[in-house]
Amino acid sequence: MDPTDPVAILAGLIRCPSVTPREGGALAFLGALLSREGFEVARPVFEEAGSEPVENLFARSGGEGPHLVFAGHTDVVPPGDLGDWSRDPFAAEIVDGEMIGRGAVDMKGGIAAFVAAHGRYVRKNGAQKGRVSFLITGDEEGPAVNGTVKLLDWAKTRGERFDACLVGEPTNPDALGDMIKIGRRGSLSAEVRITGRQGHVAYPHLADNPVRAAVAIADALLASPLDEGTETFQPSNLEITAIETGNASVNVIPARCSIFFNVRFNDTWSVETLKAELAARVERGAAADRLRPGRAPASCELLWRERPSAAFSTRPGALTEALVAAVEETTGRRPQLSTSGGTSDARFIKDHCPVIEFGLVGRTMHMSNERVALSELQGLTDIYEAFIARWFAAHA
Amino acid sequence: MDPTDPVAILAGLIRCPSVTPREGGALAFLGALLSREGFEVARPVFEEAGSEPVENLFARSGGEGPHLVFAGHTDVVPPGDLGDWSRDPFAAEIVDGEMIGRGAVDMKGGIAAFVAAHGRYVRKNGAQKGRVSFLITGDEEGPAVNGTVKLLDWAKTRGERFDACLVGEPTNPDALGDMIKIGRRGSLSAEVRITGRQGHVAYPHLADNPVRAAVAIADALLASPLDEGTETFQPSNLEITAIETGNASVNVIPARCSIFFNVRFNDTWSVETLKAELAARVERGAAADRLRPGRAPASCELLWRERPSAAFSTRPGALTEALVAAVEETTGRRPQLSTSGGTSDARFIKDHCPVIEFGLVGRTMHMSNERVALSELQGLTDIYEAFIARWFAAHA
Ligand SMILES: [Zn+2]
Ligand SMILES: [Zn+2]
Repeated sequence: MDPTDPVAILAGLIRCPSVTPREGGALAFLGALLSREGFEVARPVFEEAGSEPVENLFARSGGEGPHLVFAGHTDVVPPGDLGDWSRDPFAAEIVDGEMIGRGAVDMKGGIAAFVAAHGRYVRKNGAQKGRVSFLITGDEEGPAVNGTVKLLDWAKTRGERFDACLVGEPTNPDALGDMIKIGRRGSLSAEVRITGRQGHVAYPHLADNPVRAAVAIADALLASPLDEGTETFQPSNLEITAIETGNASVNVIPARCSIFFNVRFNDTWSVETLKAELAARVERGAAADRLRPGRAPASCELLWRERPSAAFSTRPGALTEALVAAVEETTGRRPQLSTSGGTSDARFIKDHCPVIEFGLVGRTMHMSNERVALSELQGLTDIYEAFIARWFAAHA
Repeated sequence: MDPTDPVAILAGLIRCPSVTPREGGALAFLGALLSREGFEVARPVFEEAGSEPVENLFARSGGEGPHLVFAGHTDVVPPGDLGDWSRDPFAAEIVDGEMIGRGAVDMKGGIAAFVAAHGRYVRKNGAQKGRVSFLITGDEEGPAVNGTVKLLDWAKTRGERFDACLVGEPTNPDALGDMIKIGRRGSLSAEVRITGRQGHVAYPHLADNPVRAAVAIADALLASPLDEGTETFQPSNLEITAIETGNASVNVIPARCSIFFNVRFNDTWSVETLKAELAARVERGAAADRLRPGRAPASCELLWRERPSAAFSTRPGALTEALVAAVEETTGRRPQLSTSGGTSDARFIKDHCPVIEFGLVGRTMHMSNERVALSELQGLTDIYEAFIARWFAAHA
């Protein structure tokens, strides 16, 4: 295999059925390739009570100097119904100039492009003046418990220090060069659990309907926008993802009702200030309900769910400048610096070094017939190669 | 067995474990007793595809003249956890002057009292100048599909015509003589099924959250009282019994959300005018949601659930006068004429003749250790005997 050919590398990766959390041969394939390229390869396995052990990979070339790390994942989401695919999702077939396969854009394509870009760079310029590492997990699409977080700690314990990180997730909405992600909104999830008193609908005065309180609290949560957005971020947004009562009887006033919501928030808020605002809104809703005639005070608990993540963004500097220039030089387009979209493993990496994200066009990710144009894969390889050159030039 | 002793009759009935829809020997026991008292007894069985066959009883004494029918049921709700009972729920044990057993007040006690009352009346006065019937179902606590409705039709087909009906359900909140029910509110149940567009919480502009619409519609449903009540009825009341989304993922905006509600309504409304008002409120809520910035029109369907029943009340007249006087003469208390509480089989009987309801104190009905004081059972027998006398005197 030609280590400077992203198409061959991507085909090899797609043919490893690494449906999360299974390794599927993908990390072994990548490790062997990087070994031949002179990388020192480690394959730490992490596990936790109640979750499957997950394989990961850390590979470094170069012993000292500025340290650039490329981060990503080889695990992929399941292909879903095979009948929805025009080709086997693990065959890497090429049709009309596009390679079809699960993970083609999210994000085996990004990994293949960076391996090839580095291979081309060193063949043209000799080894970089510093260190290049791959930090690759097999647990990004799953619970993300035995992946990047532990791999970062593992590397830190071994004395690895990073100066900058590029995450190779698909970031472009429509065309290569559209968008670099320089940060992400935070995410906070909660349940409001409201307890009333069960009873018969014909005797509401003997009961206390928690659904009324739930409606008042939901109103208060949705009452006004959390903010107007900032220079770097879009406005924060709250979505009620469910109201659940679990009462199938039309004659029964239920004892309990829960509201579940998630907030994607910008740097107007810290996790703590946002929690305080949400608690105040819940209390305002509960108080409004208590004002209704004959209402007993419904008891309500606000329970924070999942691990919250704070909003973050990487300040403009050498890292963003090198990537923007590489994109412009290769595509002739000026990428937008954005913080939109969901969370990514960048939220863990930002605690270790400045981090930005740039990869393929995400349009077909997680869908059937996920695919990448070979020209786009070559284009990304060109951008990554120019980025490596510019970043090491800036740190020389 | 002494057919004028309500205690012995009630003990015999309680010892038949007629947990709905099982006959448990209760109708056979009652039929044999009424046969010996000179009643002509029929035991029609009704069934329907998908439901168990249910036994019923119709017994008449007298061939012509004014026709008074006593209506009720021998089926009982399950005893629940036997550990919550101080005595076997089907043993009819007497403790401290109270008989303990499932059905003691709801409503084997009412049946026992009416049988004994009629027995006493004819022994003192000779046969009544007219007809007395028992219309007893084994399907009141269950789906109520193969019970009173079909038994009324069955009797009608056989040429039975009724002039008045007394339902023996427990109607007194605290003490014998508190309350006669002269009607019942109507009941209407519905589901509002809201369909939006599923998506990821990080991309709300690509989704359409049906929970937001649900909150707006719930608000509109609860916005203002339906009415202030009437002379005969308390205010109509709407309870939202559940909001269900069925979405366990905190990252997903769901595609669907449903509101379930029930209205207990007075004679301000017919079923049709109430449906129109509720449909207008749902539309108002959906419209308010559509006014929010960037909201796609959520589609919502209003689906009527279960068979609605209209409000009804029996006009003051010979029937209520006879019962009020019987209660006053026996207890010295003036009963309240009420339309409060849940629905009962009276809603079916009212289409055949004037109907009122009076029985024991309902405090322990459907609970563990359901029980009746023997003095109260004797008191109800006295009231029923006086009522029979007064009703036939008024129709002489
Ligand atoms: Zn990904
Ligand atoms: Zn009953």
